[in-house]
Amino acid sequence: MKVLVLGGDGYLGWPTAMKLSKAGHQVMAVDNYLRRRLCREESVEPLWEVPELRARARIWRELSGREVEVRIGDLTDWNFVANIFQSFKPDALVHYAEQPAAPYSMLNRAAASLTLNNNLNVTLNMIYAVRQFAPSCHIVKLGTMGEYGTPNIDIEEGWIEIEHKGRKDRFLFPRQAGSLYHTTKIMDTDLLWLYVRTWGLRVTDLMQGPVYGLETDETQGNEELYPFLNYDEIFGTVLNRFVVQAVAGYPLTVYGAGGQTRGFLNIKDTLNCIQLSLETPAAQGELRVFNQFTETFNVNELAERVVKVGRQLGMDVVVKSVANPRKEVERHYYNPAHTGLLSLGLKPNFLTDEVLARLMQIVLRYRNRIDPQKFLQNVKWT
Amino acid sequence: MKVLVLGGDGYLGWPTAMKLSKAGHQVMAVDNYLRRRLCREESVEPLWEVPELRARARIWRELSGREVEVRIGDLTDWNFVANIFQSFKPDALVHYAEQPAAPYSMLNRAAASLTLNNNLNVTLNMIYAVRQFAPSCHIVKLGTMGEYGTPNIDIEEGWIEIEHKGRKDRFLFPRQAGSLYHTTKIMDTDLLWLYVRTWGLRVTDLMQGPVYGLETDETQGNEELYPFLNYDEIFGTVLNRFVVQAVAGYPLTVYGAGGQTRGFLNIKDTLNCIQLSLETPAAQGELRVFNQFTETFNVNELAERVVKVGRQLGMDVVVKSVANPRKEVERHYYNPAHTGLLSLGLKPNFLTDEVLARLMQIVLRYRNRIDPQKFLQNVKWT
Repeated sequence: MKVLVLGGDGYLGWPTAMKLSKAGHQVMAVDNYLRRRLCREESVEPLWEVPELRARARIWRELSGREVEVRIGDLTDWNFVANIFQSFKPDALVHYAEQPAAPYSMLNRAAASLTLNNNLNVTLNMIYAVRQFAPSCHIVKLGTMGEYGTPNIDIEEGWIEIEHKGRKDRFLFPRQAGSLYHTTKIMDTDLLWLYVRTWGLRVTDLMQGPVYGLETDETQGNEELYPFLNYDEIFGTVLNRFVVQAVAGYPLTVYGAGGQTRGFLNIKDTLNCIQLSLETPAAQGELRVFNQFTETFNVNELAERVVKVGRQLGMDVVVKSVANPRKEVERHYYNPAHTGLLSLGLKPNFLTDEVLARLMQIVLRYRNRIDPQKFLQNVKWT
Repeated sequence: MKVLVLGGDGYLGWPTAMKLSKAGHQVMAVDNYLRRRLCREESVEPLWEVPELRARARIWRELSGREVEVRIGDLTDWNFVANIFQSFKPDALVHYAEQPAAPYSMLNRAAASLTLNNNLNVTLNMIYAVRQFAPSCHIVKLGTMGEYGTPNIDIEEGWIEIEHKGRKDRFLFPRQAGSLYHTTKIMDTDLLWLYVRTWGLRVTDLMQGPVYGLETDETQGNEELYPFLNYDEIFGTVLNRFVVQAVAGYPLTVYGAGGQTRGFLNIKDTLNCIQLSLETPAAQGELRVFNQFTETFNVNELAERVVKVGRQLGMDVVVKSVANPRKEVERHYYNPAHTGLLSLGLKPNFLTDEVLARLMQIVLRYRNRIDPQKFLQNVKWT
């Protein structure tokens, strides 16, 4: 299959490109280094310097004998998008090409505007390019579990049948997110659902939870192939951040009561979910939705796990509750379905003590690169 | 009250500015003439030339002795928006400043992109300007009944309580629209709901149906104060278009089976609804939603009404079904609630034969300006 990975430089983009390349697909990775630029602007660079995309493709070619084509450019620019689709004619694409950080989207007006414009214009261009140049291309779109928020009813996989005053219909599961970033993902779903109904696009929308981890089957201990590890409060996700805090001897910063529950997954499972979705595509005219995570934890539980494993490794790990900079419910009902990907064959990599220990040991090697000033960024929602 | 009318040059914007001015409010009308520019580009100019906004404000001043301040500029430009909010410090605003035509949004990629970027960036700028310069400003936002689509259950006013597997929660009523224009209105609701919850904005979101009519209490027979009358398939709404077709001796073009049912209202009731909403504002931190229409008709019923009244006026009116250029259900269940504005005191102006005859008589005066080539624009959804 010819697969286009939009946002191919990102935390998930590059590991996905390698995974699909190794599986025998012909892969093109596209990025404009937006995330690198924003991290530099906000002084929240990742723990190590990640080689640029072309360099990583070269390292991967030497290691695997496989070619990942690279294009650098801005997917909000229609001419760039049209050229890529016309020349590559993808059978499928994975769309990660969005500003990915909730706190960044709440930083100020300029950051909000960038997030809104980047994310929606890339999605609109992609939709028009598929229609014009590759109408049977299967779109695998990364959404987020955050689109659903934390409702007081069970979260289904994308859809819900509502019975109301004696009549019934099937709807997209109600979406109400807690940040502008998450809201742009809702808007992406609004757009995709419109054009699926209007033009018969084929789309898989993956509602993903927070991802943790660095190693995949393709990295093979080659540190130059690891993805970004952000440990700051803007671009770092919670478990990765806790691990770096533990290694640095810095308290794990739990927001408020710490009862916030989310569905998590190992980066290896992100890649497995993407591959399973691509290899069993949605039908033409179908918006297929999967909830993409393997297990749920609340923030306190994650912190406890990091404390336990950290102490086993001889670290002095403590937890500190800080005022919650976000506007979110800190104790809530949370029961999201996640059977779709399991039924496609997903075999979860759960968060065992061994997995956590291995992640901590990698981070330990970079211990002297940790800048504790990056942990707290104080991006307040209100 | 100091009221900002964003999109003050439009079909509803200028009549709203006059209405609020007459009611004693201090009004500033803002527009960038986007609609005029798009009509010219697509060769679908309105039936008569409407004086520009400053000229209309002058005519209105001479007639009423009241001042409507005018600012011409682009509300997607933050500096322009910030200047307006800083200097005027509105107590309330009415937000009409969007590309308003569903067919235009489906014309091609450039039109889709313009619609998406204009509508969402104006809304985001307005939200930030309210937060920064006028945090207790009541936002009255024009949405559309089209956000709901045509579900098989009763449409409630904005919200629905869902009981699912023995648990309950309250959600925004499910939204799934039939064009990109309507989808941008859903996205506006997504944005407003986020910032209402996050920052405690006070918002009234008016889900309006198609509007018909020209005269309001303020026009007083003064034709220079009438709003635009578009009778083409891009910017013209169905009943206004049928009236012009009848006057021109052109068949009323019904799309497909004609069973498409919508909630309609007289332009006078739009203004009444806006005034009622402003004078009984939403609470701080509330997203209040009203369904804004007074009666439902399907397209065949509207055509029959125009045929009947046209014949009474001696016109030879016929109806012609044409292939539906849109992707929509042509026969469907439709039972939307609309009690909120009635309970605020709305006294509907229903579509009587007299109302329709009066509208036809106005259009008759401009009969020789009708260009039948404008009726069919052939903007196909698929």
